[in-house]
Amino acid sequence: MSYFKTVKMNNQNIRDAHKGGKLEIRSKNKITTMEDLSTVYTPGVGRMCLEIAEDPKKAKSYTMSGNTMAVISDGSAVLGLGDIGAVASLPVMEGKCAILKEFAGVQAYPLVFQENDVETFIQYVKAVAINFSAINLEDISAPRCFEIEKRLSEELSIPVMHDDQHGTAIVTFAALKGALELTKKKNVVVSILGAGAGGHAVAKLLLESMEELSIAEVRVIDSKGLLSSARSDLNPYKKELASQSKQSKNMSYEESLIGSDVFIGVATKDLLNKELISKMNNNPIIFALSNPDPEIHPHEALEAGASIVATGRSDYPNQVNNALAYPGVFKGLIEGKISSATTEIKLAAARAIYEYNKPNLSKESILPSILDKNIPKIISEAVVSASKR
Amino acid sequence: MSYFKTVKMNNQNIRDAHKGGKLEIRSKNKITTMEDLSTVYTPGVGRMCLEIAEDPKKAKSYTMSGNTMAVISDGSAVLGLGDIGAVASLPVMEGKCAILKEFAGVQAYPLVFQENDVETFIQYVKAVAINFSAINLEDISAPRCFEIEKRLSEELSIPVMHDDQHGTAIVTFAALKGALELTKKKNVVVSILGAGAGGHAVAKLLLESMEELSIAEVRVIDSKGLLSSARSDLNPYKKELASQSKQSKNMSYEESLIGSDVFIGVATKDLLNKELISKMNNNPIIFALSNPDPEIHPHEALEAGASIVATGRSDYPNQVNNALAYPGVFKGLIEGKISSATTEIKLAAARAIYEYNKPNLSKESILPSILDKNIPKIISEAVVSASKR
Repeated sequence: MSYFKTVKMNNQNIRDAHKGGKLEIRSKNKITTMEDLSTVYTPGVGRMCLEIAEDPKKAKSYTMSGNTMAVISDGSAVLGLGDIGAVASLPVMEGKCAILKEFAGVQAYPLVFQENDVETFIQYVKAVAINFSAINLEDISAPRCFEIEKRLSEELSIPVMHDDQHGTAIVTFAALKGALELTKKKNVVVSILGAGAGGHAVAKLLLESMEELSIAEVRVIDSKGLLSSARSDLNPYKKELASQSKQSKNMSYEESLIGSDVFIGVATKDLLNKELISKMNNNPIIFALSNPDPEIHPHEALEAGASIVATGRSDYPNQVNNALAYPGVFKGLIEGKISSATTEIKLAAARAIYEYNKPNLSKESILPSILDKNIPKIISEAVVSASKR
Repeated sequence: MSYFKTVKMNNQNIRDAHKGGKLEIRSKNKITTMEDLSTVYTPGVGRMCLEIAEDPKKAKSYTMSGNTMAVISDGSAVLGLGDIGAVASLPVMEGKCAILKEFAGVQAYPLVFQENDVETFIQYVKAVAINFSAINLEDISAPRCFEIEKRLSEELSIPVMHDDQHGTAIVTFAALKGALELTKKKNVVVSILGAGAGGHAVAKLLLESMEELSIAEVRVIDSKGLLSSARSDLNPYKKELASQSKQSKNMSYEESLIGSDVFIGVATKDLLNKELISKMNNNPIIFALSNPDPEIHPHEALEAGASIVATGRSDYPNQVNNALAYPGVFKGLIEGKISSATTEIKLAAARAIYEYNKPNLSKESILPSILDKNIPKIISEAVVSASKR
C-alpha cells in the first residue's frame, strides 16, 4: 500500500532551483521611450515624491511599501539545522517569499541580519520597517524570538508575526480540531513536547481555546519534564505557560504522557517511540511535527495504536506545515491594512482552514493540501473579517 | 525648429505608473506540485542551507545575494526637492531599480532609512549589506555623503558607490571629452559651480585627468565663491578640492568665470545668465546640469554664444544623466565580482561612453542616448576589464 507518498527530489534539481537565488525583481513598466523614462523617473517621479512628502500616507499607495512584506531572520534556529548563521538561512527566506507570491500573490523580500544581540536586531528591523507593510520573523531561536516579536509588535505600526510560532500554532489548531471531530474525543489531555517557538505558541493558542476544542488539560514538556510552578529553572516565558496551564507538580516527560489523548511534538527527531505511546490513553492522536525528521516515524506511531498521525513533512499525509497558513494570513493582514496579528485573527485563520476541509475530513486528510490555491483567499477573508469584529 | 524635444507627460500617467510601486518580486520557479515544494522549500532547501553554512562563499551562487544590489537612501537630498525624508524618496529609489533591470538586467532592491545620524546610517547599511552584491547610495546630502561612502567602502567587501557623485562625474567626463574633441579647445579653464555631491566628484575626476582632457585649470565654486586656500570657512572636503586645484586667491563666482572655457553647473536653477556667460572666453561649453531646472535655459545659453550646451533633462539634447552610466557600472561591478569602484573603473566607464559615441559625435549629440541598450554592456565590459589591470 502507498500510505507514504514519496516525492522525487535530487540534488541537481535542488541546485538548479536555487542557482542565482529563487526570486526575480523586475520593473512593472517597460522603459523604452523618453516618455516612459520621464514618467517613471525624472522629472515625473519628482511629482510623486512631492505628493508623498506632503502626505506620507500616500507612500502606501504609490510605492511598494504598501504591498510588500519582509521575511526577516538572523539564522539562529533554521529548520532542523539550528544556528547556521544569517547568510546560510537565506535560501529558506527566499523560499518563503517565493511561496507567498506563488500561493497568495503577496510580494515579499528576504532580509537577514547577522546579529546576536536582541536590542540591535530589533533596531535593524525597526529601521527597515518603513519599506514594508508587514514583517514575517523567521527561524529565530527561543526565547529571544518572544522578546523580539513582542517588542516589534508594540513599537511598529505594521503587523509583525514570528511564523515559526504562530504559523505552526494556527495549522496545528486546525489539524487538531479536525482530528478531534473525527475521533469524537472529548475532555482531552494534550501533551506538547517542546517549549520553544512552536511549542510555546501552540500551547498559548490551545490554552485560549479549551472550551472550543474540549480540552481538559494542557501539559507542556521541555527537556527537563513538565513545565510547572514546582520548577525553579524556568525562564519567564515557560513560567507563564506553567501558570496558564495550571500545572503545579514535578513530572517527567514519560509521566506526563500517562493519561494523554493527544501528543504534539515540536521538538526533535526520535523523541517518541512505541513504548512511550503505550503510556497514553487508547488510540491517541499523534502529531510528530519536528522537521525534517519527526519525533516518531508515522508508520511506527500507527503500529503503536495511534488513531491519527500528522507530521510536518510534505511526503506524508496530514502535513502540518506553516505554508498552509502564512500566505493567507499575511495576504489578509496586508490587504486589510491590519496593524497587528491578534489572537482573534490567528484563531479565525485556523477555523477557516478547518471549515474549508470539513467536507473532505478523513484520517488521512485532517488538513487541506497546501497546494490548494483556494486556501490563501479563504484565510485572508477570515483574517480581514476578524479584524473588523 | 525643434531643437528642444518635448516629452508628453501627464499626472494621470505618472500616477498610474507609480500605483502599487514600480517593481514586482516574483518566484523564478513555479510551485504547483509537492515535488516543486520539496525542491524550493523544505526539505530540499535545507541541503542548500547546509552547503552554505559549510562554505559561506556559496551564498553568492545559490541566493540572490550574489546578483542583487540595493539602492539605499535617507531622502536627505532628493533631486530638486531637497530633504523630503526617506519615505518620500522611495519613488526615486524604485525608479533606479526599475532602470537597472530594464537597461542592464541588474536586479536591485530599494531600501530607505529615516536616519539623520551618520554613524547609525552607516550601521544600518552595513547590517543589510550581507543580502546584496553592491550598494548604490542615493540622494544623500553633502558633506555627509562623503563620510558615509568612504566609511562603507572601507568597511564592506562589496562595492559601494554614491551615484549622485560618481554617476554624474562619469557622464560629465564623457560629455566633456566629446565637447572638447568637437570644439578643438586646448588648455581649457573649467569652472564648476556647486561643491556638493555632484560638484565634488566631477572636480575630483577632472583633476585626475588634466592631461587627458587638456585642462589647464579647475575652479570649484560654492555659494561663497571660489574654493581656495585663502578661505577659512571650508569643510575638509572643500579644503581638499581647494588644495588639489591649487587655488589660493579669493574670487567671487563672477570673477571665477573670467577666462573660463567650460562651465559645469551642478548647483541650482537660474544661477547662470547671459551676462555671466559674457565674462567667459568666446564660444564656451555650458553644462547646466541642475535637475529638473537647469542653471540656465539651453536656448538662452546658445543665444549668449555657447558652442555646446548640455543639461540633465531628458527633454533637451545632450542629456547628462546618471542613468547613462550606473546601470552598466553596477552590471560590471557585480558580474566582475569587483569589491570596490576605483577611480580607474570610473574613468574606464567614462571613456567607454565617449568611445561608443564617437561615430555620432555632434554638437547636439555629445553623448549617446540613455535609451541605447548597448550602453550598459559596453560600460560593464570596460569596468570588468579595468578591474583586471
